[in-house]
Formats: sequence, structure tokens, C-alpha cells
Amino acid sequence: MPLSIIATIVAHPEHREAVGTALRDMLAPTRVEPGCQQYDLHVDQADPLCWVMIERWADAAELEAHLHSPHMARLQSAIAGKAAGIDIQRLDLIA
Amino acid sequence: MPLSIIATIVAHPEHREAVGTALRDMLAPTRVEPGCQQYDLHVDQADPLCWVMIERWADAAELEAHLHSPHMARLQSAIAGKAAGIDIQRLDLIA
Repeated sequence: MPLSIIATIVAHPEHREAVGTALRDMLAPTRVEPGCQQYDLHVDQADPLCWVMIERWADAAELEAHLHSPHMARLQSAIAGKAAGIDIQRLDLIA
Repeated sequence: MPLSIIATIVAHPEHREAVGTALRDMLAPTRVEPGCQQYDLHVDQADPLCWVMIERWADAAELEAHLHSPHMARLQSAIAGKAAGIDIQRLDLIA
């Protein structure tokens, strides 16, 4: 069953651009993952430090594979100490 | 410039289904609005009372037209007293 993810990453002020670059680097390798149906990077209009990735995955197994991918490991290390972590909201697609 | 919206509607427990029905009724008339690029209904896996609409609009003007549409007025009255309101997060699409 498809599911959507809202991933929110709030950068520390001095690292806003570095976090943005690390997130942009995720786009290409993620969008070619077999279960990836949407992977779009945004910035919250109300908070320029708040990066938001809107994602859609074919199923939970494909999402788990993504979360354990080499590029996700690179993201984690690239933003370590530069953001308040990655908040992941999992949403079941209804219609 | 395209923008995405995350609209969160937390239903009161006794009105969960009524709120879901009112949100489902938004799908057809909204998806045919000229500027509507995505309008998908979800439920938060962590909170079944939390309905989330992930939306994409061609630009802010098309979103404003939607927010002033007859079907949005119907939604507002249908969920009045049944949910804690509609929280709208506006996101600029980066890539």
C-alpha cells in the first residue's frame, strides 16, 4: 500500500545552506529508487530554516530500503550537528 | 511559482468519520481546478484522528481561488465543531 512521508529538517541558522545542499544531493539517487513515486524538496514559507521533503513510496518495504541506503547514510552524516535531526511523519494514502 | 500545501485536520474522536467524508468530498471538485497539480488525502499512521491533505498548486493565486471556492466553504461548514480547524503549512517547491 502506498504511503507518503513528510520529512522535516530544521537547520541550525549557520548551517542552513549546507543542509539544503545535502538535501539536494538526495534527489537524484532517491528518485531512481524503484519504489520512489515522489521526492520533492521544499522550504517552509513561514520558516526558512525548515526544509521539508514530501515523499511517496510504493510500500513500507521500499521506504525501509531507502532509509538504509548509502545516500541516506551520507545525508545523516552530512547534517549531523547542523540540524535538529529529521522528523518523519508517515501517512497512509487514502484517496 | 509552484507551491505545496500540507493541510492538517485533527478530528474530534466522535466525528472522525464525518470529517473524513467531508474531506473525501473535496477531492473531485478540487482535482479539476485549473491550478491543482496534487490533492491527496492521507491519515497519519501515528494518529488516526489526524487527516492530512498533501496539495500542489501552480501558484499562490490558484491556491487562493481554491480557498475561496464553494466546495471549500462547504468543507468549512461540514467540519465546524467536528475538528480542531485546518492547519495549513505553505511550502515553496525547491527541486
